[in-house]
Amino acid sequence: MSDQEPSQTEKETFMRRAFEVAAIGMNGGFGGPFGAVIAKDGVIVGEGHNQVVADHDPTAHAEVTAIRNAGKQLHNFDLSGCRIYVNALPCPMCMTAILWARIDKLYYGAFPEDAAAIGFDDAYFYEEIRKDTAARALPTERIESLYDEAKASLDAWLTKSDRTHY
Amino acid sequence: MSDQEPSQTEKETFMRRAFEVAAIGMNGGFGGPFGAVIAKDGVIVGEGHNQVVADHDPTAHAEVTAIRNAGKQLHNFDLSGCRIYVNALPCPMCMTAILWARIDKLYYGAFPEDAAAIGFDDAYFYEEIRKDTAARALPTERIESLYDEAKASLDAWLTKSDRTHY
Repeated sequence: MSDQEPSQTEKETFMRRAFEVAAIGMNGGFGGPFGAVIAKDGVIVGEGHNQVVADHDPTAHAEVTAIRNAGKQLHNFDLSGCRIYVNALPCPMCMTAILWARIDKLYYGAFPEDAAAIGFDDAYFYEEIRKDTAARALPTERIESLYDEAKASLDAWLTKSDRTHY
Repeated sequence: MSDQEPSQTEKETFMRRAFEVAAIGMNGGFGGPFGAVIAKDGVIVGEGHNQVVADHDPTAHAEVTAIRNAGKQLHNFDLSGCRIYVNALPCPMCMTAILWARIDKLYYGAFPEDAAAIGFDDAYFYEEIRKDTAARALPTERIESLYDEAKASLDAWLTKSDRTHY
């Protein structure tokens, strides 16, 4: 990690800002009551609220939106050294987004049960994502006839000399 | 589901388009060699390639980008009735995004091992996401002192009369 563990005051300040951002999003009709704040070395570098409804974007959860904004601000897809503050524990999509972003630490406020109590139940998503592909409720089919072409589309990456790893 | 299972020809056509989109993204320097196509009733309603590098957005995987584009085109965060075609099996972020989007069916080309062979190993992410919060490599802390405020920020949703469920 790039910096020391923040003070309790700092953690509470950023978490309270996440509550504010959540309220802004909800009251503005953007989506559900979720807010996220990303800070680096004690400074906010990205914020986001849920905007699934307003943007017609099922991926626009608070955490994803905050990650996008922080990436833009830092001109980097790698958010190492950053910490994220969210009012509720992230769903699997957002949790994996936090991992891909290489964020150092996650702080959260409410329990999954609290989100479920207001109609946002992530338990189903965690159950499904834990299953093997064939066992998921989502029908999934491999197009076997095009396997060679599919593999070739990936292998092309290795011939690209200026590729950036992420 | 809103429509019948597509013909093999239709499935191959959309999958081949996913390969094309993947190549466009890779050759344009947007990111890794991944492409996704979303179709509804036999018509493409959204496409996307990985653009993590160009957009400084760690969430801009092909599937997420295609979902965003389809949501915009259909003016709906609910992509029920849609099918998604991807050249490789999705990571947990994208798999959960597909679930949130209520997409009917997933078609894929290459195996996770093929993506791992070119340096994109999702196995770690699947391992981590399957763990309980406390067991993950990602340090995670609940801000217990603000629990009441966190819960209140969620409960505010129930007082909003014009809320849209998603």
